[in-house]
Amino acid sequence: MSTATVSRVLNNNQNVSPETAKRVLAVIDKLGYQPNHLGRHLRKNETKTILVLVSTVANTLISKVISSIEITGMELGYTVLIGTTNDEKKRENAHIDLLRCKFIDGMIIINTLMNKQELACLNKRYNIVQCCESIPDTDVSSVSINNKEATYQAVKHLISLGRRKIAYIGVKNHLSSSEQRYLGYVGALTEFGIQIDKSIISDGNYGFRSAIEVMNKFLLKPDKPDAVFAISDRMAAGAVRAIKDNGRTIPDDIAVVGFDNTDISYISEPRLTTVSQSPAEMGKKAMQLLDKKLKGLNITSNVVIKHKLIYRESTMG
Amino acid sequence: MSTATVSRVLNNNQNVSPETAKRVLAVIDKLGYQPNHLGRHLRKNETKTILVLVSTVANTLISKVISSIEITGMELGYTVLIGTTNDEKKRENAHIDLLRCKFIDGMIIINTLMNKQELACLNKRYNIVQCCESIPDTDVSSVSINNKEATYQAVKHLISLGRRKIAYIGVKNHLSSSEQRYLGYVGALTEFGIQIDKSIISDGNYGFRSAIEVMNKFLLKPDKPDAVFAISDRMAAGAVRAIKDNGRTIPDDIAVVGFDNTDISYISEPRLTTVSQSPAEMGKKAMQLLDKKLKGLNITSNVVIKHKLIYRESTMG
Repeated sequence: MSTATVSRVLNNNQNVSPETAKRVLAVIDKLGYQPNHLGRHLRKNETKTILVLVSTVANTLISKVISSIEITGMELGYTVLIGTTNDEKKRENAHIDLLRCKFIDGMIIINTLMNKQELACLNKRYNIVQCCESIPDTDVSSVSINNKEATYQAVKHLISLGRRKIAYIGVKNHLSSSEQRYLGYVGALTEFGIQIDKSIISDGNYGFRSAIEVMNKFLLKPDKPDAVFAISDRMAAGAVRAIKDNGRTIPDDIAVVGFDNTDISYISEPRLTTVSQSPAEMGKKAMQLLDKKLKGLNITSNVVIKHKLIYRESTMG
Repeated sequence: MSTATVSRVLNNNQNVSPETAKRVLAVIDKLGYQPNHLGRHLRKNETKTILVLVSTVANTLISKVISSIEITGMELGYTVLIGTTNDEKKRENAHIDLLRCKFIDGMIIINTLMNKQELACLNKRYNIVQCCESIPDTDVSSVSINNKEATYQAVKHLISLGRRKIAYIGVKNHLSSSEQRYLGYVGALTEFGIQIDKSIISDGNYGFRSAIEVMNKFLLKPDKPDAVFAISDRMAAGAVRAIKDNGRTIPDDIAVVGFDNTDISYISEPRLTTVSQSPAEMGKKAMQLLDKKLKGLNITSNVVIKHKLIYRESTMG
């Protein structure tokens, strides 16, 4: 039996009769053969392994996006690994090194400390796709919702309910989504001739307790807000807790809108009006886009996934 | 300048004068040199990369354990990758192949489809540590709480409050934690002479909605439970929702206990009595144990992390 025949069997080549394949596999089983994947991959100059780069997996929305990337990646024949950075440059670099040394074929970048120029530079040399975030004016392919438009609609919904003192709980970081959401908030207020009031704009850290602190400060003002928009459900749930502990009712005194439609949004009481991002669709599209790049289709594509405003009792009580 | 000198500089060897190091690094910068980590690692026969094997990252407790493994791993000089299996054998095998082809030096296994024999076999050939779960009677090192004892205490707490019809919401899977928790529940009831009532023992899928369904079935019984123990906070929160929607009060009519002390446990109203697992400590210990193994200390160690019952309004209203 020739080496070529054995190789054909191991690579599932169709030009082998079923009988031959059976005989080859029987011998292989007997010898306890283990295919050396790294060796196989190095010869083909690909590892069929990709990495998802992310700050942390401790985020309900992001973990759903990752699950979808993994399922789609598996269907397309990839091993999907996750690398987290905790927003530390050293950790991010260690993962980017995996691209440089061809440990992995490509990368889906959910969030990164790289600026526009660094990302563009990486994109010239390697196969990367941005997911959830989309840094404007680069050649880097991306899949995300329109964060500015989504926030604009959420704030417009509050305005349509007669609210004028709309507080904003954001997060101070480098993410395009944070910036775009803030622009959407400012855009809606400006369109309806509402003055931007910096005293009811503040930052949390995406977490429940951070928003309780922020909201408690807003509630100390003589001129209290009549609505709050928070860029995460967890922070919106924190605002809800602070408002209720302050003896005020939701939505009559203060209406609340969150972001992401995670299960926090319906575990919170009242349930939260929130922006839904379709994590399953985002993850799937991002993986499909990376697959196309890895197959040599060198296109830049900025896919915008539809978002949806989910109306619940925190604004429509 | 000799190759040896350059190599010494790149490997941070102390036997190089600062001036020489400076000159070497300047030349390297000019040439745009990129170290080939894979090449370096193959020569040393190590990659300084480890993998965390897990079913899914969409779990609040597990994602905290992973964050702690990553922080500790980074401090010890490792790149930490995450591989998820979605409880599919094919995906698990793809990750185990990374050990076989020396892509990674070792593995922290949070959950696996492997049975006791398969795990023991893997443990003979590679450096692995179990985390959060501990399959009894193997030589595989592990870090976990005593799930049986923790559940025993939680159920005993309900009994001490005078409850006798204590329902159990579990998850039907292959995990040692699920089995141990069930044994703890049965143990507590048995000790206090309470008959096991199969009609108030049922399975969800760790999720909020699954527990609502299970609880609604329990509430249809003429002989309703007066307490519920659920093996996750998410499921306990689902039970709380179902009980309240059914017009019953917590804890007066029905007391509820969850597991994990995640933020769901204090976002839920009333806040949940729950078992705290110290994810940061579990992750840190698991990484330290794997590091010892990778440094050649061939010890089997089954570390038991202290758990803590957190008393809140869902039982102590």
